[in-house]
Amino acid sequence: MNPQRIEVDYRFPVGSDAEKQAQILAVGQTAGSWDARFRYRDDVLRAHLGEVLQIQENEDGSQQATIAFPLANVDGGIGSLLTMIFGKYSLGGTAKVVGLRLPEDYGVRGRYGMAGIRARLGVSDRPLFMAIFKPALGLSAEDHAGILAEVALAGLDIIKDDEILPNLAGAPTRERWRACAPILEARRDRLGRDLLYAVNLSGNAQELQTLARQLVAEGANALLLNVLAYGYPVLEALASDPEIAVPIFAHPALAGAFSAAPEHGLSYALTLGTLMTHAGADAVLYPAHYGSLSFPAAEESAIRDALRARGVAAVPSAGVQPGILPQILADYGSEVILNAGTGIMDHPQGPAAGVLAFFEAWERYRAQESFSLEELPEGPLHAAIDKWGNGHG
Amino acid sequence: MNPQRIEVDYRFPVGSDAEKQAQILAVGQTAGSWDARFRYRDDVLRAHLGEVLQIQENEDGSQQATIAFPLANVDGGIGSLLTMIFGKYSLGGTAKVVGLRLPEDYGVRGRYGMAGIRARLGVSDRPLFMAIFKPALGLSAEDHAGILAEVALAGLDIIKDDEILPNLAGAPTRERWRACAPILEARRDRLGRDLLYAVNLSGNAQELQTLARQLVAEGANALLLNVLAYGYPVLEALASDPEIAVPIFAHPALAGAFSAAPEHGLSYALTLGTLMTHAGADAVLYPAHYGSLSFPAAEESAIRDALRARGVAAVPSAGVQPGILPQILADYGSEVILNAGTGIMDHPQGPAAGVLAFFEAWERYRAQESFSLEELPEGPLHAAIDKWGNGHG
Repeated sequence: MNPQRIEVDYRFPVGSDAEKQAQILAVGQTAGSWDARFRYRDDVLRAHLGEVLQIQENEDGSQQATIAFPLANVDGGIGSLLTMIFGKYSLGGTAKVVGLRLPEDYGVRGRYGMAGIRARLGVSDRPLFMAIFKPALGLSAEDHAGILAEVALAGLDIIKDDEILPNLAGAPTRERWRACAPILEARRDRLGRDLLYAVNLSGNAQELQTLARQLVAEGANALLLNVLAYGYPVLEALASDPEIAVPIFAHPALAGAFSAAPEHGLSYALTLGTLMTHAGADAVLYPAHYGSLSFPAAEESAIRDALRARGVAAVPSAGVQPGILPQILADYGSEVILNAGTGIMDHPQGPAAGVLAFFEAWERYRAQESFSLEELPEGPLHAAIDKWGNGHG
Repeated sequence: MNPQRIEVDYRFPVGSDAEKQAQILAVGQTAGSWDARFRYRDDVLRAHLGEVLQIQENEDGSQQATIAFPLANVDGGIGSLLTMIFGKYSLGGTAKVVGLRLPEDYGVRGRYGMAGIRARLGVSDRPLFMAIFKPALGLSAEDHAGILAEVALAGLDIIKDDEILPNLAGAPTRERWRACAPILEARRDRLGRDLLYAVNLSGNAQELQTLARQLVAEGANALLLNVLAYGYPVLEALASDPEIAVPIFAHPALAGAFSAAPEHGLSYALTLGTLMTHAGADAVLYPAHYGSLSFPAAEESAIRDALRARGVAAVPSAGVQPGILPQILADYGSEVILNAGTGIMDHPQGPAAGVLAFFEAWERYRAQESFSLEELPEGPLHAAIDKWGNGHG
């Protein structure tokens, strides 16, 4: 691939005039046409035009076109990229953006990624275990600290706010962080390793950046951003800010509004995969097919592969509980962050047991021992599988 | 409507279990469920739950549900709002958000709107005429200044960058502004009224805000933002910044990725209408049905009405040229900004004549004179209609 170009694949519905649509994209989304007055600038203008590289018919009869756009048309960010590849066209044409190949150094690279998060935690030899504060709304800062204390001493690696919890007058984010900070310190003292708490960011772009700086200045060691609801350029700004040198977890909220439609928008592999890796995410949460969400397994593996191709941590979420750890590791290997919401917080013996059940599951998996209820000793894993099953019905 | 609530309408496809989906939205997108450990917080938790207000079947067999969400769940911004009303749900459920009723004072209100833009320009009695720099890419700062000089003295009200032109190393935004600033000054001296130049913003969220401040400090009198590509919170930050006290024009690029699909995403009336008016836009561009874009007229009028309900300037775009001025004024009245790209820049006698043709069209329209080619005197309007027609074939 020419390093001075960006390649984009568009899929058009059955019966589309792909040749014509591809030309509209290559010309209409770039320099357009010009008349005699600008003849003296012909060379420069032409250098900004896109080029149709290929048009093919897919097996299902849909059409697919690949367009090469000059790198010189964009500023290195996702905002100008999205505007170029799909901006005005999205309002009129029916197409889905299904492929995107950017130069390796395009955009912002996360400062940590999976390797950096592992280094930060001092855990190299197993999947990482992550929990979510629940209930999402209505708890006090002290309630959060109480929950955190339970899971922290059980050995949890990462916890995050629920994504729907913003900075509320009735539950200020910094107050929550301050209540939780001593718990994290105590945990490090006790277990000799950190627990990352990804604090949810909110506000307008300026407030959000300020909040992130304040949190990090007060010791916060990870952040959470609803990237689709706030914009990739907000993520880029966080990931480029020297005052915010902590891992950034990207949440997929709202991604379906861009990616769920069959013939419109951009595919999940782009919104939650490729674009995230060029906008500075260190870890990306995305729907797994283990839960009740009807998320296609093929989309999930495409996201995973896009993240891993650039060292970003893959965090499959939904339906994650200790009983299906073998299934997840079969899909992912151990280079994965297992993100459990109810799968930890709603454990029948409490959140700490929820964490312990994951560790127990990991040990049994390594020892190649059975996950069937009858063969499990009493304890956290037994109680978890008794409640949620082991994925084999 | 209860001022402490946000009402949202969701449309589900034919055959959906709307009751079930509505419950998932009302509960799963708010406090969720909780167990005995949090009984002592029952009252607070319950106050964060959504409520299903209504479920009905539409004429086409699709289902529609209205959910009320507590205002206490969000922080007053669009980021937390979108995360709540559609965040996680968008990844699993099939629904389109088709209605949104926010408290009057929710979010950020544009400081200018249509009235403020009129006041800034000193034009109260006619539609405003707006042009777009073309070609979009490949011109030097001096080229821009040259184009601007032509249209400025012809009396144009507003001009904007093409939305695909970001801050490029080869064409820096501030350099372009500096080349154009003297032309705007000369125009004010000569005609006694301002021409607004909406300069396109780009970069990561932080860079973009800094660029906006620098431009305004150097005299820029309007800004352009691709709101969907950069995020509503970026618009909110601009509109809340005391250093950026100029009208902000919102461009619709990428809105189709959210709004074009029939059964997914959010309707155009929300993405380009309601949400823009609560995020601080002063003027919003959106596709008109006058051009080749196959944009539904019903969507266009829903956007227009949402904008006008909060005093935001409506800027229908696409296919706008002098010959269809009567048609546009029939649809809009004169409280409108007519945004012409090629309709000014590609006028056969040059851009200045393109502007003059609009003024000529306005005068003829007021005098109720014919727009048929045979009855027009030679001049800019005649040349325009000879090239583009008068909308009557």
